[in-house]
Amino acid sequence: MGRAKKVVLAYSGGVDTSVCIPYLKQEWGVEEVITLAADLGQGDELEPIREKALKSGASESLVADVKDSFVEDYAFGAIQANALYENRYPLGTALARPLIAKILVEAAQKYGADAIAHGCTGKGNDQVRFDISIAALNPNLKILAPAREWGMSREETIAYGEKFGIPSPVKKSSPYSIDKNLLGRSIETGVLEDPAVEPPEEVYEMTKAIANTPNEPEYIEIGFNKGIPITLNGTPTKPVELIEQLNQMAGNHGIGRIDMIENRLVGIKSREIYESPAMLVLIQAHRDLESLTLTADVTHYKRGIEETYSQIVYNGLWYSPLKAALDAFIQKTQEQVLGTVRVKFFKGNATIVGRWSDNSLYSPDLATYGAEDQFDHKAAEGFIYVWGLPTRIWSQQIRS
Amino acid sequence: MGRAKKVVLAYSGGVDTSVCIPYLKQEWGVEEVITLAADLGQGDELEPIREKALKSGASESLVADVKDSFVEDYAFGAIQANALYENRYPLGTALARPLIAKILVEAAQKYGADAIAHGCTGKGNDQVRFDISIAALNPNLKILAPAREWGMSREETIAYGEKFGIPSPVKKSSPYSIDKNLLGRSIETGVLEDPAVEPPEEVYEMTKAIANTPNEPEYIEIGFNKGIPITLNGTPTKPVELIEQLNQMAGNHGIGRIDMIENRLVGIKSREIYESPAMLVLIQAHRDLESLTLTADVTHYKRGIEETYSQIVYNGLWYSPLKAALDAFIQKTQEQVLGTVRVKFFKGNATIVGRWSDNSLYSPDLATYGAEDQFDHKAAEGFIYVWGLPTRIWSQQIRS
Amino acid sequence: MGRAKKVVLAYSGGVDTSVCIPYLKQEWGVEEVITLAADLGQGDELEPIREKALKSGASESLVADVKDSFVEDYAFGAIQANALYENRYPLGTALARPLIAKILVEAAQKYGADAIAHGCTGKGNDQVRFDISIAALNPNLKILAPAREWGMSREETIAYGEKFGIPSPVKKSSPYSIDKNLLGRSIETGVLEDPAVEPPEEVYEMTKAIANTPNEPEYIEIGFNKGIPITLNGTPTKPVELIEQLNQMAGNHGIGRIDMIENRLVGIKSREIYESPAMLVLIQAHRDLESLTLTADVTHYKRGIEETYSQIVYNGLWYSPLKAALDAFIQKTQEQVLGTVRVKFFKGNATIVGRWSDNSLYSPDLATYGAEDQFDHKAAEGFIYVWGLPTRIWSQQIRS
Amino acid sequence: MGRAKKVVLAYSGGVDTSVCIPYLKQEWGVEEVITLAADLGQGDELEPIREKALKSGASESLVADVKDSFVEDYAFGAIQANALYENRYPLGTALARPLIAKILVEAAQKYGADAIAHGCTGKGNDQVRFDISIAALNPNLKILAPAREWGMSREETIAYGEKFGIPSPVKKSSPYSIDKNLLGRSIETGVLEDPAVEPPEEVYEMTKAIANTPNEPEYIEIGFNKGIPITLNGTPTKPVELIEQLNQMAGNHGIGRIDMIENRLVGIKSREIYESPAMLVLIQAHRDLESLTLTADVTHYKRGIEETYSQIVYNGLWYSPLKAALDAFIQKTQEQVLGTVRVKFFKGNATIVGRWSDNSLYSPDLATYGAEDQFDHKAAEGFIYVWGLPTRIWSQQIRS
Repeated sequence: MGRAKKVVLAYSGGVDTSVCIPYLKQEWGVEEVITLAADLGQGDELEPIREKALKSGASESLVADVKDSFVEDYAFGAIQANALYENRYPLGTALARPLIAKILVEAAQKYGADAIAHGCTGKGNDQVRFDISIAALNPNLKILAPAREWGMSREETIAYGEKFGIPSPVKKSSPYSIDKNLLGRSIETGVLEDPAVEPPEEVYEMTKAIANTPNEPEYIEIGFNKGIPITLNGTPTKPVELIEQLNQMAGNHGIGRIDMIENRLVGIKSREIYESPAMLVLIQAHRDLESLTLTADVTHYKRGIEETYSQIVYNGLWYSPLKAALDAFIQKTQEQVLGTVRVKFFKGNATIVGRWSDNSLYSPDLATYGAEDQFDHKAAEGFIYVWGLPTRIWSQQIRS
Repeated sequence: MGRAKKVVLAYSGGVDTSVCIPYLKQEWGVEEVITLAADLGQGDELEPIREKALKSGASESLVADVKDSFVEDYAFGAIQANALYENRYPLGTALARPLIAKILVEAAQKYGADAIAHGCTGKGNDQVRFDISIAALNPNLKILAPAREWGMSREETIAYGEKFGIPSPVKKSSPYSIDKNLLGRSIETGVLEDPAVEPPEEVYEMTKAIANTPNEPEYIEIGFNKGIPITLNGTPTKPVELIEQLNQMAGNHGIGRIDMIENRLVGIKSREIYESPAMLVLIQAHRDLESLTLTADVTHYKRGIEETYSQIVYNGLWYSPLKAALDAFIQKTQEQVLGTVRVKFFKGNATIVGRWSDNSLYSPDLATYGAEDQFDHKAAEGFIYVWGLPTRIWSQQIRS
Repeated sequence: MGRAKKVVLAYSGGVDTSVCIPYLKQEWGVEEVITLAADLGQGDELEPIREKALKSGASESLVADVKDSFVEDYAFGAIQANALYENRYPLGTALARPLIAKILVEAAQKYGADAIAHGCTGKGNDQVRFDISIAALNPNLKILAPAREWGMSREETIAYGEKFGIPSPVKKSSPYSIDKNLLGRSIETGVLEDPAVEPPEEVYEMTKAIANTPNEPEYIEIGFNKGIPITLNGTPTKPVELIEQLNQMAGNHGIGRIDMIENRLVGIKSREIYESPAMLVLIQAHRDLESLTLTADVTHYKRGIEETYSQIVYNGLWYSPLKAALDAFIQKTQEQVLGTVRVKFFKGNATIVGRWSDNSLYSPDLATYGAEDQFDHKAAEGFIYVWGLPTRIWSQQIRS
Repeated sequence: MGRAKKVVLAYSGGVDTSVCIPYLKQEWGVEEVITLAADLGQGDELEPIREKALKSGASESLVADVKDSFVEDYAFGAIQANALYENRYPLGTALARPLIAKILVEAAQKYGADAIAHGCTGKGNDQVRFDISIAALNPNLKILAPAREWGMSREETIAYGEKFGIPSPVKKSSPYSIDKNLLGRSIETGVLEDPAVEPPEEVYEMTKAIANTPNEPEYIEIGFNKGIPITLNGTPTKPVELIEQLNQMAGNHGIGRIDMIENRLVGIKSREIYESPAMLVLIQAHRDLESLTLTADVTHYKRGIEETYSQIVYNGLWYSPLKAALDAFIQKTQEQVLGTVRVKFFKGNATIVGRWSDNSLYSPDLATYGAEDQFDHKAAEGFIYVWGLPTRIWSQQIRS
């Protein structure tokens, strides 16, 4: 008997996941392979992908448009968490993996499969995110990762596929490894593997070079409710549309590029280039609105929560009890995060130039140095006496 | 007897601190006022200030150029700490206060004064920073803050000064409250008190408007050793000079503006505009170099240290045992932070486009997806088994 | 006009709060004083207290038995949070203050009072807890604290009271300052102010000296659901009763004493003696049950949450948005905290000797070294490779 | 060629590590095995162990008394860190592993070995601690762990050994798996694998049952300097001796037992029994002394440092840059931790009953409620105004 009987395979239409189909059947004795391709806004036509799976030997070929859920159930929570891994990366790819795992598990359950397969190799973060998400959702399903074990080079993989009627890729393969979805692109390998080399302009697709951006600034206003963006320039906008519009608008001004050295979960550093216009703008705007609507102690404590949230999402623990508890904290804080943020897009800069809120904790009468000042100045002395007392006692002790 | 006999007064040459001189003597019975004006790179001529103090009734008028110490002993530690209060403000003013307190205490000790005075009001952060720094350095000195108590409006203050020969300000007073030194400017009040209003261009001085910046990018290279910037474009550069040059270069490209709602220690939110070109660039470059030279766990843990460091420096606890312990942590991590960062200045953007280090922990042979890959792919499965085991057990438990 | 028109006063029946009644009216021009005495299980008769207030000049004298709410709405949350201030003090007094503040505010609103008064002095934590809780619940109410301002010694206070018919205390006053309620006692001052002196046996009331405890151990079993104790020795037990029984049982075995140097919010250290048998046993048992039912990452992260929770409750921020967010985190984690803990009481020791749970994450088949071992030993090598990779790379770098 | 040429093997004299000698040579082609047995105070005779290794086929048999270093370089740092893994376990075994790794690496370097071997299996924490410590100290050495791979049961292991002249164990093997050294014992397996079962008295060796302890309390005084214990009852005492004496004295009173469910690094929970009298008493006393000599903010921040320190030491990262940075923080805080703690041993309880220090930050004149009170009571009102202002503003906002 093989490693599994019926497998649901995460399918992209590329060579690797196509080759997985015959490989699973021939090498690992799988009887039936059902493919599942998810539309996360990566811009591929799904119908050709669907057909290609069948031609490659799949018994069923499923496609699912999950863009709405992607934004509402995954991206929006990350915005509320101001989630930036290592203070920079808005987790575009990391957020997609648990959603794909979820529909894979649902399909496996629906079709009575006993295993799930994916095409990840053994060095990236995605294998971890898939494996742990699947285990969290259904620990009884086996997980198969052919590409982690087969040890074939790209050429060997193509050759293997050709034996089973899988056409070798038409266009010359990109020197870069790219993942793309609605939230952004991640670009790796090639010359980018040298951290000293400036990324060539060709790696970018969603964002214009600054030299090519408009010479006039553009002002936009983003309205939030409970920490979630709901309006764009005053117009209620559906989640997916809001992300798409912001990607276009911010990208047009050259906003959204990231170039970083990143610590992967599997113990190594890698150099990553990202484009994520909408997410970066939304997180920046959201954080600014929080500065108006959250108390200082919540803001400061939430910073630590945000760090941990970003790390565990990056590390594949989306469906974990720690994630659930961090979410509960975050959701509680978001109840008051209501208001509008005005952002100026210009030459690669997204600058917050104004913010207002019915829940603002900024009190002009307390902040002002003008005549209407209501702050109790005499209180300061008492405050400083108490606030500084430990330092004063300590100083008296160590200096005597 | 008065509140003190001999007082050293922190002196700026402005109306408020000038009025403090006769006020301390007339109203609070101080016998002798010695003024001390510190040159922190704010750009004022010191000799006229020195003379003005004497004319205003000071018995001694001291001036001190402390720019070297400011950069080496205060700013550089903040760069190593990637210190950004509330993730944004590089603490230009907050770093100056403990240094001024230090030379005030030294002067008080040298001249046998029994008190130190400053011109802060009761609502800002600076009073806290002065009072606690002074208490930490010499808890036996009294602290006098006339402006916190006198309750005079600006007009009344000017009128009071005129009685004692202090000339009323010649030029119309700025609508803004501004603090400036080598590390940057902070701008408050006036129309800025409305967080919804975009700051008018007139508030900026160190940074050009993007529309007026060069149309060609400029590349610079900053060399660090032990986390401290030591070269600019390959040339060893003295600390003060390095800051000055970077302020000029980055400011010329419109880099270094901050517009934020900030939580003050005294319990209120305020809207602050900052310009801090050199510090922002240096912290960004330093953090990037750390991403190459520190391990993941150190990087992640240091983020929390950095938050706390920023908060306690902002809150006036520079000379505190917690600050000393955080410093010890940070210094230990900096031993390996050596290397060069290449930054591109263009249209308000400072973009890191390259970094290299003899201490780099980035391993091309482990990171690559190419043929020279040395990573043990089979290890991944074992890792994921162990890493995901708690989630798997938990899932089995809650789903059964 | 006086400082307030109608005041609700937190009333204990003691001299200080009794004197507050005429003082508020005579010295501060208050027209009407309504007293409110809360029964938190401190063991006082309420009716004499009610009458004494009226005799002392109160226009209304309210008493409220709030023991149920005290345990269910305040103590149980603290148990779920394993709340021990500075790792030791289970917050008995600190938990009572926000509840008292709540019923004071409710009474003020019901009776149309414009102020609330309490008898705290200016050095303790309780004034902060009262003032901030009241402000959080109704920021429009004035807060009066006569004892913080009147500057009378104890003798002067008694004399002042006698002028208004308030009898001087019959029995010689205790050398200790004591606060007591259902959750425990706190004892301060007198010889205890010397941290080098062992507390005399006389300070204790709820706990026997070890020499006088039974010579046989007693085993008890505490059942929890969602982190809340619900059964005692298998019997469903109401909250207040459960605390009372545990206080008695544990105290009988000499369990529940604390002797510590504590950092007060107002900047000073104090030496505190506490007795808190039930709370200490329940927190210990609860934490042990969590070790069986929570994943490692939740347990470790929750430790930090618990520290902050303890600090902000100690510091008077019960009704704050940060507390609410921490609570949301904690409540989420408690959903699985179900099971029974077996505790052995003997000679001052409460020792957990067994625990079991339907939600146990302890897996005998994975933990065992016996033949039924299901752990994948080969996975370890892969795990260690990945887990140790950053250290290995770092070592190669710094040692080469 | 075999897996290595010359191997230094961590040797205990037991069956498993004895069998490793022929196994490494026969099965893995190792040419030469040098054994190293460390004396960490586990109480074994070293000479018979030395001889047994030679009889089992070792080419060299080294023994090393490293007790002094164990206490001074490993245990004392853990005391300064108040290191308790999951708030309970004082890391006795975890602290020994990096020291053994260090002398193994030193021996390997001295004897020109190309690998180090140990007898750990694949499920415990020790394999991780050894492997990562060795990699950190010399990343070029291979690491061999025969027992992690050989898959032999205990009976098979004994049988394998007998083929090579290794005698089968004389006495019936304990039902428990035990590790012992100067700092304590850890006991696992057997009936202890059921977390509901009370540990039988027979598992304990260093601590008396409470029923058998003296009926009179014993008072001891421990003197610390820079956070390190240096005197016992006023007598300067050498580190190893101090630990030995305290183990004896505290154990005699039944102090030092721990029964806990613990989260292992490898993803599973295990039930552990520990005895660690001296370490538990020293950490408790040290923490109490810190409460007298550290400021509140240092104490509170250090709690988080301590948690992380305990976790990374438990997890094998003793020789890691994060550990080094945490150590720097801790050492800085310990400079003032000087003084004496008085502890009462009685019936299983170690109770701190007094503490004093020349560096005490406890100020009787500030803490007292007596006439000599120097605290500025009026300051409290100002402090509370500022401290409570965010809550007040927030309340006004959300309640209006």
